[in-house]
Amino acid sequence: MKITDIREATASIGSSISNAYVDFSQMTISVVAVESDIMRNGRPVTGYGFSSNGRYAQGGILRERLIPRIRAAAPQALLNDAGDNFDPRKIRTVMLTNEKPGGHGDRAFAAAALDMAIWDLMAKLAEQPLWRFLSDHYNAGAYDEQVLVYPGGGYYNPGKGLDGLQDEMRGYLDQGYKAVKMKIGAASLDEDMARIEAVMEVTGSGGDLAVDANGRFDLETALIYGKAMAPFDLFWFEEPGDPLDFALNAELAQAYPAAIATGENLFSLQDARNLMLHAGMRADRDWIQLDPALCYGLTEFLDVIHMVEDMGWSRRRIVPHGGHQLGLAMTVGLQLGGTESYPGVFQPFGGFADDTMIEGGMARPDEHIGIGMEAKAKMFAEIQRLVGV
Amino acid sequence: MKITDIREATASIGSSISNAYVDFSQMTISVVAVESDIMRNGRPVTGYGFSSNGRYAQGGILRERLIPRIRAAAPQALLNDAGDNFDPRKIRTVMLTNEKPGGHGDRAFAAAALDMAIWDLMAKLAEQPLWRFLSDHYNAGAYDEQVLVYPGGGYYNPGKGLDGLQDEMRGYLDQGYKAVKMKIGAASLDEDMARIEAVMEVTGSGGDLAVDANGRFDLETALIYGKAMAPFDLFWFEEPGDPLDFALNAELAQAYPAAIATGENLFSLQDARNLMLHAGMRADRDWIQLDPALCYGLTEFLDVIHMVEDMGWSRRRIVPHGGHQLGLAMTVGLQLGGTESYPGVFQPFGGFADDTMIEGGMARPDEHIGIGMEAKAKMFAEIQRLVGV
Repeated sequence: MKITDIREATASIGSSISNAYVDFSQMTISVVAVESDIMRNGRPVTGYGFSSNGRYAQGGILRERLIPRIRAAAPQALLNDAGDNFDPRKIRTVMLTNEKPGGHGDRAFAAAALDMAIWDLMAKLAEQPLWRFLSDHYNAGAYDEQVLVYPGGGYYNPGKGLDGLQDEMRGYLDQGYKAVKMKIGAASLDEDMARIEAVMEVTGSGGDLAVDANGRFDLETALIYGKAMAPFDLFWFEEPGDPLDFALNAELAQAYPAAIATGENLFSLQDARNLMLHAGMRADRDWIQLDPALCYGLTEFLDVIHMVEDMGWSRRRIVPHGGHQLGLAMTVGLQLGGTESYPGVFQPFGGFADDTMIEGGMARPDEHIGIGMEAKAKMFAEIQRLVGV
Repeated sequence: MKITDIREATASIGSSISNAYVDFSQMTISVVAVESDIMRNGRPVTGYGFSSNGRYAQGGILRERLIPRIRAAAPQALLNDAGDNFDPRKIRTVMLTNEKPGGHGDRAFAAAALDMAIWDLMAKLAEQPLWRFLSDHYNAGAYDEQVLVYPGGGYYNPGKGLDGLQDEMRGYLDQGYKAVKMKIGAASLDEDMARIEAVMEVTGSGGDLAVDANGRFDLETALIYGKAMAPFDLFWFEEPGDPLDFALNAELAQAYPAAIATGENLFSLQDARNLMLHAGMRADRDWIQLDPALCYGLTEFLDVIHMVEDMGWSRRRIVPHGGHQLGLAMTVGLQLGGTESYPGVFQPFGGFADDTMIEGGMARPDEHIGIGMEAKAKMFAEIQRLVGV
């Protein structure tokens, strides 16, 4: 068994949305195909992967560093001990050979795209959905029949207004979602409070509304927003300050009684561990949101889960960012706390398989083999156009 | 005044050396030229920059993200208020527009190469050496007549042996260096202790010998090495553990009485601030070693200096990593604690101008305009070959 080809390309996911930090009109991601020498139905079994939104394509790092190292490795060095499938840890070690520690940024996004393709390939070789492959091999056969999902939405669009925001949220509820998320921090406090109250008219309570500042606030502003929002007992207050400002997070956690969620802009086990050690996160209510399609991949994410548990937390406090099928498969098969979804943004890569039904804010696992990208038609057509044979 | 062209290329700095983590045989860096419309001697005034060793070239990020944003900006938006020179903070903001917070890795290395070229260009436009430009504009006219420099050496080379290591160190002393540095962590404790004692025979004392583990040790190993090395009262024990393992560093600092130095693998103000807050660093003896040619550049480094001082530390505790002319200019003009040098490695980019004399372990500023790359003949010839007109 060996890898016969690795192809990468850049996909555009540009849109008119923006959050408190980023205008997404020029956004790109990397798409990767990892082809094996195992043939099924006359075609090589191939895994697909992509990096998550918000961090741009990583073609340079993939072409110049990560892919050549995998190509240069002896095929046996990439397989598990039984030789019947690939070994994601060995592949991670190979692709990151001669890379110095620290500096977990663009390199982590490039590795994550490749790593996603490796896991898709492994589950396909095992002829299982990835969630079941993960359950069998990494969770003693346990999995969840349904998992919490929430749409990452409520962006600032030009000319959207409060009515448009409420319409967007009603649309999510119509699709079966219960908890929703909206952006804050790119408007004044008064405007944002009006936006929050408008959305709470739709959700009925703060408990089903998460707000996301995208790392925009300094300590003073985070505390002001926290004080203003505390009475709503929101689902969570996401990324109040700079993702690496652990001291800010710790001070806010002292003052803000409801839940805080953060971690989508931490991209390694070491950075996640620093969050747990230094940011005042509370095991009984806060949420950890690393993105497996940015933080070197699911392989690194498994280490993060174990680190979180070693610190006495439940893995149910982990809710992967990114709104993609990988996050859903992990949440089901590894029994995490829930995962984001992007039913309306970052198309065609955002959201789950075309036949995934959301009911009461919960999604159920499907039986598509691998990650199931073939069952998300528009996305898979784009993947085939970019990295198909 | 405006930027008329920005050129980038990849330079090879491959060599047979290795440290505890990285084999440098495939190492590359990015080289950048920023050309202005100001003509002198019939040629446009042009600034040059490069990223530091160890982290690979960043052509993809430069070509796809950073350079196009500078090209697309209105020329006025890149100038200082007087309009008589560029404004490095404005250029930093432009080149990092629509970049999310956190994830300070390859993007920081790409930005640092560009930022170095901007500072070279600014000093050339002012017809000053960069150290004097920095002294005048950022240090109230103060500067140092001579600054501590030490060679980053003592690498593990195939077949080098203790004699070879001693010969290398004698060579540095012959060149005028006093304090030297060597690698540890890629051999056994016994072998490394023999290597340290062999070098101390040359230096005469531990006070002129720094050792560098390049982030290789876990806590237990760091403590074992610390206990074994404590009697030598070494110049410093550099990067004992993973650069982001602040808890390890804090525990070692409790147990190891002599100086610790770290920071070359932290690439942003936020990461440096976390080091200061969470890593148990001691203001009376420890050293901070961010690399201005990796951490988004001198522009970000100025913020780091102010952060360090705001925490009650002296800027004399800062010793820029990287062994390049930018580090020397900053150390002179901003009165830092010293800087690394690479007289023997990472050629032709390592080390200072050809006419820089080292005496008693100190280097003196020269009068070359800008960073003075033109006065480092082999390096400048390579820069011209790569990004000349």
